[in-house]
Amino acid sequence: MNRSERIFNFSAGPAILPEPVLREAQQAIWNLDGTGIGVLEHSHRGAAFQEILDDAIERCRRLADIPPEYHILFLQGGASTQFFMAPMNWLKPQDTADYLVTGSWSKKALAEARRFGNVHVVCSSEDRNFSYIPPRERWQFSERPVYVHVTSNNTIYGTQFHDWSGFPDDAVLICDASSDIFSRPLDVRRFGMIYAGAQKNLGPAGVTLVIVRDDLVQRGSEQLPTMLQYRTHVKANSCYNTPPTFGVFVMARVFRWIEQQGGLEAMAERNRRKAARLYEYLDQSRLFRPTAEKESRSWMNVTFVTGDPERDARFIEFARQAGLDGLKGHRSVGGMRASIYNAFPEEGVQRLIEVMRDFESREG
Amino acid sequence: MNRSERIFNFSAGPAILPEPVLREAQQAIWNLDGTGIGVLEHSHRGAAFQEILDDAIERCRRLADIPPEYHILFLQGGASTQFFMAPMNWLKPQDTADYLVTGSWSKKALAEARRFGNVHVVCSSEDRNFSYIPPRERWQFSERPVYVHVTSNNTIYGTQFHDWSGFPDDAVLICDASSDIFSRPLDVRRFGMIYAGAQKNLGPAGVTLVIVRDDLVQRGSEQLPTMLQYRTHVKANSCYNTPPTFGVFVMARVFRWIEQQGGLEAMAERNRRKAARLYEYLDQSRLFRPTAEKESRSWMNVTFVTGDPERDARFIEFARQAGLDGLKGHRSVGGMRASIYNAFPEEGVQRLIEVMRDFESREG
Repeated sequence: MNRSERIFNFSAGPAILPEPVLREAQQAIWNLDGTGIGVLEHSHRGAAFQEILDDAIERCRRLADIPPEYHILFLQGGASTQFFMAPMNWLKPQDTADYLVTGSWSKKALAEARRFGNVHVVCSSEDRNFSYIPPRERWQFSERPVYVHVTSNNTIYGTQFHDWSGFPDDAVLICDASSDIFSRPLDVRRFGMIYAGAQKNLGPAGVTLVIVRDDLVQRGSEQLPTMLQYRTHVKANSCYNTPPTFGVFVMARVFRWIEQQGGLEAMAERNRRKAARLYEYLDQSRLFRPTAEKESRSWMNVTFVTGDPERDARFIEFARQAGLDGLKGHRSVGGMRASIYNAFPEEGVQRLIEVMRDFESREG
Repeated sequence: MNRSERIFNFSAGPAILPEPVLREAQQAIWNLDGTGIGVLEHSHRGAAFQEILDDAIERCRRLADIPPEYHILFLQGGASTQFFMAPMNWLKPQDTADYLVTGSWSKKALAEARRFGNVHVVCSSEDRNFSYIPPRERWQFSERPVYVHVTSNNTIYGTQFHDWSGFPDDAVLICDASSDIFSRPLDVRRFGMIYAGAQKNLGPAGVTLVIVRDDLVQRGSEQLPTMLQYRTHVKANSCYNTPPTFGVFVMARVFRWIEQQGGLEAMAERNRRKAARLYEYLDQSRLFRPTAEKESRSWMNVTFVTGDPERDARFIEFARQAGLDGLKGHRSVGGMRASIYNAFPEEGVQRLIEVMRDFESREG
């Protein structure tokens, strides 16, 4: 099996993973580190898995410089479970939580919070189909929000927060970082909780990374089902029940791969370069145009259109035949989307530009 | 990589999987069926995964002869999530749910139900450390339970229900079948819901098989967080959010493997034979004795002791050196436990008997 068997995969998630990690996973599935037992078959209470878990936590903490007062958890249910689990733990009926509404996912998070207490919309970019991050001067916070929720990258619309100024100093920031976690340095201290479904930058679907500050964990309601209290998972170090062991294994190896690439600074540099190259091409193209407003453009998901849905469809098929898969935009917006997460190689970006250029000269 | 690299793995879960399935998983992680994209990296909205999902559902339905009015779901959060999700959906504060308490897991399920309504204990075997399934003449049901919850196999104590008589005809039976699902034929029509964490007989940790009748789905509360309503997952065919795609893939392949073995009847025959051989040895041994009472013995988890914890520890180490792993009993009961799920080979059982015989002649 050589590299050429694999094609360029622009899927928005589950998404491309680093090939050296896939190789390690292949081996581990048969026999983990010479234990004579595959990684899927090791008890979560045994030494082999405990070593994987410790390794995952340690590398994660080091990568993002996570202070000791933050817990690192590997949970199930995706970001969609965090959408309700956060307000269920922290939002009481008489209190208010603030939401920045910058896309479908923050809208879904907001909808779940409404079931538990008051919600307040700090800003929304729905007026122009979520094609921008609302400027700070338009943000309006409520008086004493129990937390402020933000989605750092909007997978569907190709927008991303590029700085973290403008939030009240004392706000408990909760961030859904599913589609850009560990794509760049992150000042964890600014947040109360950061959560991310693994299936974009970190690993396979089915495991959610949760980085949560201890005082929040302790503040959570004690009346909830055991599995829905963060303290349960903190006390048991993510092993209250059987964790998604394979997902944790893959994440540990992805963390190591990121370290080997030079850490989050190096990832950011590479991701910025990949995205810049694509936007640069799109900005000068006579056929394609990017849909996100300039200051809000995502480094992870580059969304673009020709302006003609039929031509979009022709391009997607043209690219597919050239070995570029997963370029179709989300069903709610149409057009194209190139997801270029951490593991997506620079030569794939180059190849996409060549294919766009080809298509442009045919149709232009 | 040949067979001899792998050892006999008696782990109670995550547990041994069929080797042909592991081989398929290894290949699929690099490149799924020639798509040029690995199974971890395929979008859950794409054709390749939809085919896997359809295949998993179809094979599951065929294997257990599941009628069309039952939905087959692949959820996250393990059986521990079903412990609260079932009562959250169906048990109102003024109503009562009945529980058969036959081990730690049914106790935990009962504890979660208490948060939502009244619970009634039909029977309990806690008086003799859950070493038996209480006889039917001691069962007492409440007057109009909204459902009756039962744990079909008790992983920790090595006991198992061997027939399904004795339940009221009109009761909605909910069964936690995590540790014996698809180890034998199952009359799905007798149950309202059957659920099982995959990590024993079906696949990797992180995916839960839920087989649930449509009228129950419709009856569930509509006030719950979206992710906690069964109807959400039914409507979206387990793809409301990103499902644990790799787990579904492995389960589909395990279902196929079971079919290739001859289906559930053939699995039952093989499992009965493996367990009988072990119990036969233990019953005549002068050193070891089984801990579960005869009529209640599990075909999946064979628990036994020497009566001397130090000797138990010596045996576990002796067996480990002979290439038999995972024989240590659960921390709450001590002794030994041989988990011999579907994928556990008959020669491994034979090997364990030889090793016990060896040990017996040394210590005897």
